[in-house]
Amino acid sequence: MAFYEVLGVHGIENLEKTIRYIPKEIFIILDGKRNDIGNTAQKYAQSLFDTLKADAVTVNPYLGKDGITPFLEYSDKCSFILCRTSNPSAGDFQDLKISSLPLYQIVAQKIKEWNTYENCGAVVGATYPEELKTVRSLLGENIPILIPGIGKQGGDVQKTVKNGTNSKGELALINCSREIIFVGGDENYTELSRRKAEFFYNEINKYR
Amino acid sequence: MAFYEVLGVHGIENLEKTIRYIPKEIFIILDGKRNDIGNTAQKYAQSLFDTLKADAVTVNPYLGKDGITPFLEYSDKCSFILCRTSNPSAGDFQDLKISSLPLYQIVAQKIKEWNTYENCGAVVGATYPEELKTVRSLLGENIPILIPGIGKQGGDVQKTVKNGTNSKGELALINCSREIIFVGGDENYTELSRRKAEFFYNEINKYR
Repeated sequence: MAFYEVLGVHGIENLEKTIRYIPKEIFIILDGKRNDIGNTAQKYAQSLFDTLKADAVTVNPYLGKDGITPFLEYSDKCSFILCRTSNPSAGDFQDLKISSLPLYQIVAQKIKEWNTYENCGAVVGATYPEELKTVRSLLGENIPILIPGIGKQGGDVQKTVKNGTNSKGELALINCSREIIFVGGDENYTELSRRKAEFFYNEINKYR
Repeated sequence: MAFYEVLGVHGIENLEKTIRYIPKEIFIILDGKRNDIGNTAQKYAQSLFDTLKADAVTVNPYLGKDGITPFLEYSDKCSFILCRTSNPSAGDFQDLKISSLPLYQIVAQKIKEWNTYENCGAVVGATYPEELKTVRSLLGENIPILIPGIGKQGGDVQKTVKNGTNSKGELALINCSREIIFVGGDENYTELSRRKAEFFYNEINKYR
């Protein structure tokens, strides 16, 4: 779930209540893209994993390893590190070439290297299917990829499944938020959003 | 102020109360290092500027321009974009060379380019005085630099002032948090933290 403090000053409190309401068997990824120096990253990790009870988080890599280690040290939790984001300007920095490799590929290499506790993941936008394919090949078989960008952002489901999964058709967490949450309808919101979720569920499985 | 949700689920509420308590003439920078795709960045900007009434924020550049624009569109607020962070691993990605320039310098160039509303700033750690000098020269005279890293992180005050200010000895916002906030003392905490703050205030002005 995205991390809107705009819900007001009670946003985090409401988020905590929402998480408490979700059945335990459902895997919870807090997509907060947090990042800071080691000391503060430690507090963020504590907040997200201990206070809010997330199973996984998203983390921004710009600060390098010591900003990410405090998250990874929660060895039974998963940290998805932004690799190739889904937005139009993703390439501003992520496409810049470092001795012939674009930055997002260097980040992918680091994710593989930092995977000591086998709890690293990568974030790659469904809006960039070719980059997704490259990242999957750099990460190998065992690192999960969190893939936002289908639905509202227009990513192609078939390409996403094909390029994001490993050889067993697994380890791609394909996320759809706004298209389901903001489906509209008043009285029949529950039914409409359920149908949308089912639609994407079936679409994804069709191509596995 | 740093942005600790670890204060518990009431952290944001307490932050809002703290900000309300601070006299209006004091400039408030919310150091949350937020970042997300345009739609979510818009909500973060709204949360930080409208709900929490910050005067300025820190923003992570990894997602490129469309993740930053929603902050910049608050044209009477200031957005400090992470350029060279103060932590030991800062160089993991920020030092990678892109056609002979390290990434943090490319970010500095972009900050200058994105300064349409004259409300962009850069974050550069006091722990990297040479990089600070380079960023000041890339940004020119009119862009403020927010400089964390003196105090606990060990940055040198003299070098920070010399390399971070413009030719008038201005536009360096030198920040010290933990060394003041966690000064210790129980009954005399107010006095001790005031003295620490005064010490750094005088140190900084000595070298201007």
